[in-house]
Amino acid sequence: MSDTTEAASQTLAEQLLEAIEQNDGEAMAILVNDMPAPDFAEFVREQALDLSHKLLSFLAIEQRARVFGYFQPEDQKALAEQMPQATLAELLTHMNSDERADLFNQLADNLKAQVMRLLAHNEREDLRLLASYAEGTAGALMSSDYVAVPARSTVAQAFEIIRATAPSAETVYDIYCIDHMGRLVGTVSLRQLILARKEARLEKVMATEVVTATVDEAQETVANLIAHYDLLALPIIDLGGRLVGIVTYDDAMDVAEQEATEDIHRGASVQPLDRGLSTSSLFAVYKSRVVWLVLLVFGNIFSGAGIAHFEDTIAAQVALVFFLPLLIGSGGNAGSQAATLIVRGLATGEVRMRDWFRLFGREVLIAAALGLTMALAIAPIGAIRGGEIIAMTVGLTMVTVVIFGSLAGLSLPFLLRRIGWDPATASAPLVTTLIDACGVLIYFGIATALLNLPAAT
Amino acid sequence: MSDTTEAASQTLAEQLLEAIEQNDGEAMAILVNDMPAPDFAEFVREQALDLSHKLLSFLAIEQRARVFGYFQPEDQKALAEQMPQATLAELLTHMNSDERADLFNQLADNLKAQVMRLLAHNEREDLRLLASYAEGTAGALMSSDYVAVPARSTVAQAFEIIRATAPSAETVYDIYCIDHMGRLVGTVSLRQLILARKEARLEKVMATEVVTATVDEAQETVANLIAHYDLLALPIIDLGGRLVGIVTYDDAMDVAEQEATEDIHRGASVQPLDRGLSTSSLFAVYKSRVVWLVLLVFGNIFSGAGIAHFEDTIAAQVALVFFLPLLIGSGGNAGSQAATLIVRGLATGEVRMRDWFRLFGREVLIAAALGLTMALAIAPIGAIRGGEIIAMTVGLTMVTVVIFGSLAGLSLPFLLRRIGWDPATASAPLVTTLIDACGVLIYFGIATALLNLPAAT
Repeated sequence: MSDTTEAASQTLAEQLLEAIEQNDGEAMAILVNDMPAPDFAEFVREQALDLSHKLLSFLAIEQRARVFGYFQPEDQKALAEQMPQATLAELLTHMNSDERADLFNQLADNLKAQVMRLLAHNEREDLRLLASYAEGTAGALMSSDYVAVPARSTVAQAFEIIRATAPSAETVYDIYCIDHMGRLVGTVSLRQLILARKEARLEKVMATEVVTATVDEAQETVANLIAHYDLLALPIIDLGGRLVGIVTYDDAMDVAEQEATEDIHRGASVQPLDRGLSTSSLFAVYKSRVVWLVLLVFGNIFSGAGIAHFEDTIAAQVALVFFLPLLIGSGGNAGSQAATLIVRGLATGEVRMRDWFRLFGREVLIAAALGLTMALAIAPIGAIRGGEIIAMTVGLTMVTVVIFGSLAGLSLPFLLRRIGWDPATASAPLVTTLIDACGVLIYFGIATALLNLPAAT
Repeated sequence: MSDTTEAASQTLAEQLLEAIEQNDGEAMAILVNDMPAPDFAEFVREQALDLSHKLLSFLAIEQRARVFGYFQPEDQKALAEQMPQATLAELLTHMNSDERADLFNQLADNLKAQVMRLLAHNEREDLRLLASYAEGTAGALMSSDYVAVPARSTVAQAFEIIRATAPSAETVYDIYCIDHMGRLVGTVSLRQLILARKEARLEKVMATEVVTATVDEAQETVANLIAHYDLLALPIIDLGGRLVGIVTYDDAMDVAEQEATEDIHRGASVQPLDRGLSTSSLFAVYKSRVVWLVLLVFGNIFSGAGIAHFEDTIAAQVALVFFLPLLIGSGGNAGSQAATLIVRGLATGEVRMRDWFRLFGREVLIAAALGLTMALAIAPIGAIRGGEIIAMTVGLTMVTVVIFGSLAGLSLPFLLRRIGWDPATASAPLVTTLIDACGVLIYFGIATALLNLPAAT
């Protein structure tokens, strides 16, 4: 039961807190080793640095390296910089190759150089390579801890290699078959190997149609490939077709979460943050928000100019002002809804560029129904505040702005992608601002016509 | 190379289209069998039903069942209902147990009964059980195709069971150890088994601290557990602790994507759709959007009432109207940004309830900096349009509404969770509407004071 599991972990955390309070080293050692690595990492995150070092010291180096992989980057860095260099080098040696490279990339330059000197040749070369790929690429995401077997091996030979590699490999369930140049020529699953004859050669058993990505592929594409083909791991190759790493499904899940977060932030006109909200610097949060806020201020000037333009109309019929925010707001809200549905659909691949025409047709009907519903809701209030004509003006405007707003909101993401921009730029605030300005013109245009008011000058 | 892979699939799809055009059955058969199942499923989705049936008929039943699992629910249903019942029963028999139950649940009641009769006893019972769990629970998500081995078996015995089960199991990489009552008592990975002595008993090798979920657990929790503990599969148990199914990581990835979509929709005041945007009925899309739109109309009445209340202020200084949309809009935009950052942080677990106070303190500083930047951007325009005092009024209002909007936007999701609501209810349109109304009061309040205007009546 997850309830039980969570409750059990809760209790472990509580027991550990108690042991810390009583300075009971023996109890601490037992509890720390009982806690699952992700839970222990979360626990340590809440503690002071000194205590964190002490708690980590209760773990064997392999487990300590595992826990370290679950820390937030900034916590990793803080802990690493306080360690004796030899301890840090030992930790790096035992970490997964991809997590090792991530940690290494965060260290200060002089510390990097010093630690490098303390590593064994193999680790040093591996680290140098993995740390060299640009953030956000398959190369930066991949691990070099995979099982590669010559395609000419027999199944029995493959099992020997797997047994020898199993303790350090990220996964032993997909086995990569390579030729004498190190090029990936096929894959075979451990499941297939278990069912195969011991003397069969891998090249007879392996699948040769392999989904792969190159080291410079975007991490988002890598995550999408893993999700689309339900892969356990995606092999990563260099430009010469040589196998250089794998990205496992759990890393793909992390990337997918990170990409969803970025899309959600963009949807509110926030530019992606490099770190979590809690750990980003104040300036980083400021920077991620200020650009769009200022741009939108200038966008809103058009609405203001529109209202100012209809000054005489407003003066002649002040009741109109009462309905201004709700009419232009409704257009903006309906538009954000439509834009958000499309932006997400394009992101998941459920909506494609060629769907625009069909979805536009559907949206005409949906938006008309929405506009009519909202007009019916608000018209009685219009009648009470200003009589029949005001009710008619408000109702007609509502239908018009909701249809206009919805169609504009639906089309904007398609338009943005067509010109090569990220459709997620069509954020709710941007859509609202654009539609607000048009809503002002629609409202006062209809009012001027219906109420026989003096036209704007 | 993924480029190559995609290009190759592209070519396969193109070649298949060509073969269809030339009615070349032999070429069709080869191409259909070469295409990866998810790609073929996507290809079929674009074709007419008749052609879909024909293309599927080129596949062996096992592969056909696999491809069927990748179809959209509505396509599955359309294809299934046109099949002879015996063919449908054969297809169901070969599908993964979780996908089988999903398809079965979509069939019309009379077809369900007829197909049930054609299934073998085991499949019938399995289907009856899996199809009985409520949508959105672990039970509805789980598969019964797992490998369970008595905990008292030896490693060698376990391997025999694994070999016998391998062809139909969803995964053979996590093996579940059960007692004589069918209760889950431990797990062992295939990796461990490969390294273990053949004569060792599983109960000596297995891990006994197992993360599990019960059948009635929410699918979101299941997906989170799999992501948090980096599991390949999560065992699902009934209330008696008996193992009844597993949820695999690829299903967890699908759930995570679906949950992110729901959160993104909620962020634009759209209630979750059961299906994709393209395939939902017009009425379903209407329904998902109308409730909040109408509620927000009434929310916006407060802004309108606020403006109407300050009628005399506006009449005395009409230049104020020009700045109205951009000032209250800016408060709303800054507020949506803050709310969105918190809602997503709470969803991923990066932000916790107890972080409110600390984040509130940070937000005061960030919002003040944002407000000052925006005030500096807009004050010159205030000076040009209405002189120094207007510039001061506009600048001061900007700083105030941005700080107020940001703090309100940041606090609302915390408040909603505190009272037991989904924090994602704090959508951009809702936050904007709430802050707009307050922005009107702040603006005209400051204007009345600074410009020495007649107070509102």
